[in-house]
Amino acid sequence: MSVLGCIEAGGTKFVCGVGSGPEDLKLAWFPTSSPEATVESVSAFFGNHALDAVGIGSFGPVDLHPESPTFGYITSTPKLEWQFFDLAGAIRRSLGVPVGIDTDVNAAALGEARWGAARGVTDFIYLTIGTGIGGGAVVHGKLVHGLLHPEMGHIRIPHDLAKDPYPGGCPYHTDCLEGLASGPALEARWGMPAQQLPPDHPGWVLEAHYLALGLVSWVCTLSPRRIVMGGGVMQQPHLLPMVRRELLALLNGYIRVSGLIDNIDQYVVPPQLGNRSGVLGALVLAERAHRNADPRTATAPAGENL
Amino acid sequence: MSVLGCIEAGGTKFVCGVGSGPEDLKLAWFPTSSPEATVESVSAFFGNHALDAVGIGSFGPVDLHPESPTFGYITSTPKLEWQFFDLAGAIRRSLGVPVGIDTDVNAAALGEARWGAARGVTDFIYLTIGTGIGGGAVVHGKLVHGLLHPEMGHIRIPHDLAKDPYPGGCPYHTDCLEGLASGPALEARWGMPAQQLPPDHPGWVLEAHYLALGLVSWVCTLSPRRIVMGGGVMQQPHLLPMVRRELLALLNGYIRVSGLIDNIDQYVVPPQLGNRSGVLGALVLAERAHRNADPRTATAPAGENL
Repeated sequence: MSVLGCIEAGGTKFVCGVGSGPEDLKLAWFPTSSPEATVESVSAFFGNHALDAVGIGSFGPVDLHPESPTFGYITSTPKLEWQFFDLAGAIRRSLGVPVGIDTDVNAAALGEARWGAARGVTDFIYLTIGTGIGGGAVVHGKLVHGLLHPEMGHIRIPHDLAKDPYPGGCPYHTDCLEGLASGPALEARWGMPAQQLPPDHPGWVLEAHYLALGLVSWVCTLSPRRIVMGGGVMQQPHLLPMVRRELLALLNGYIRVSGLIDNIDQYVVPPQLGNRSGVLGALVLAERAHRNADPRTATAPAGENL
Repeated sequence: MSVLGCIEAGGTKFVCGVGSGPEDLKLAWFPTSSPEATVESVSAFFGNHALDAVGIGSFGPVDLHPESPTFGYITSTPKLEWQFFDLAGAIRRSLGVPVGIDTDVNAAALGEARWGAARGVTDFIYLTIGTGIGGGAVVHGKLVHGLLHPEMGHIRIPHDLAKDPYPGGCPYHTDCLEGLASGPALEARWGMPAQQLPPDHPGWVLEAHYLALGLVSWVCTLSPRRIVMGGGVMQQPHLLPMVRRELLALLNGYIRVSGLIDNIDQYVVPPQLGNRSGVLGALVLAERAHRNADPRTATAPAGENL
């Protein structure tokens, strides 16, 4: 039995775990400080375990192309200290084990695919609506990477300034989806954190509208079989039903597929792993790193099928 | 040597071909009338050839799930006569050969992947901007299908009514991308067909802006390695450079990947097969139908790898 470690590397904290799945997972976390100090804390935690491999789901952007000289680096993040930091390399050198890495949302998608709300679903997206907005997409059972990796929060959506004078908070795009509908955008617009807005506050109608506009884009582009919506903002239980209704209203009967229009409650769903989707997905990345690094078990294609 | 037929089934005409590739393709076309009369014309054309298989790239929506009872049907099209017409079945019964079917834009993506602008590219999108706006996506070398198939033209984009009072022409969504930027939308907004607008007409600035807003969505969602833009509206040679510039302006340096920012002229490109991308892609579908139907050659997985 191999011993696997997992890391959800976030902008404010690093969640680390050792285990084999949702029922067997020992967690610890460390605040995200300088890259060196953070890697040191993480390594100290893992140092007590005889790990076989580690998986990392990281904030981004991350270079995910194995043939690239900066593979495993965090690249052009606005967090200056972390720009072009070789996260995967630092962890690998510190622990001396194979390391798998992907984005935090791709890892969360893997976690939900293995143990959660997307089990058995070959084509789906996982979204997080929180400090930022991000998404991981699975197509034909594999994570979408492409040129970089998806940056779903930065799609542009309609923004009626007469109805919503808040200009948007994205430093790059002002009123992209993340700029209009992330947690900080809600707080900046209404003057209080999302969790303090009462359920009947008009802010939720607007939030459901913006999120549903995003879903329209992804439904029309990827035609997913399921959409999993996690993240801090989605913790408000009244929000998900509003998003479902608004998605149907915006599609207006154009996508006439039973899996969507007759089953919206099973089509747009919450995660089943709570806030552990990402760190558990990192465990799947660790598994893969272990399998691919070990010639005795690397008989499966070096693939990413779920 | 097998004899393969191909059909690009459009809303106004059916283009039919027999051959093996761009250098060997005999074409004919028939106006799209009633389903029965159209299939009869098509069958008469193919009847002179001893076909082994036929591929169809069809207007949609099309049911592409082999396990579905309406597999190969055109489903909820606004063309009433064609609603729930078993196009693949009618062709198969009439010609007595295996039939492969996909959407017109997915077929065009296959054609450009095999012989055109996307050769060797595992992750790309093919777009057509014409009577409608549609797109086919290839991820990890396979076409994206999912729950239905992409309907990329129907994503929502920002629409500033003060700058562009044209309300949009989509019967389902009014001012989705197709409603704002298709050929008919251009004509309705400016009172003349797109090809009559002079190159310095402000309509082109607006058109490039709308199309680039669409590209932003797809870049952020699929992270393609290339974008191929075809269709009648893209025939204006000044438009593509404007779209490239506007895409970079809208992304505003956020996606800092050399393949995009340093190589935009190779990133957003015209098709290389002119208006034959779709019908040539249908030839690839015919090949697959032939291979999968013939046990002697069906050793390759029933797959869709390019």
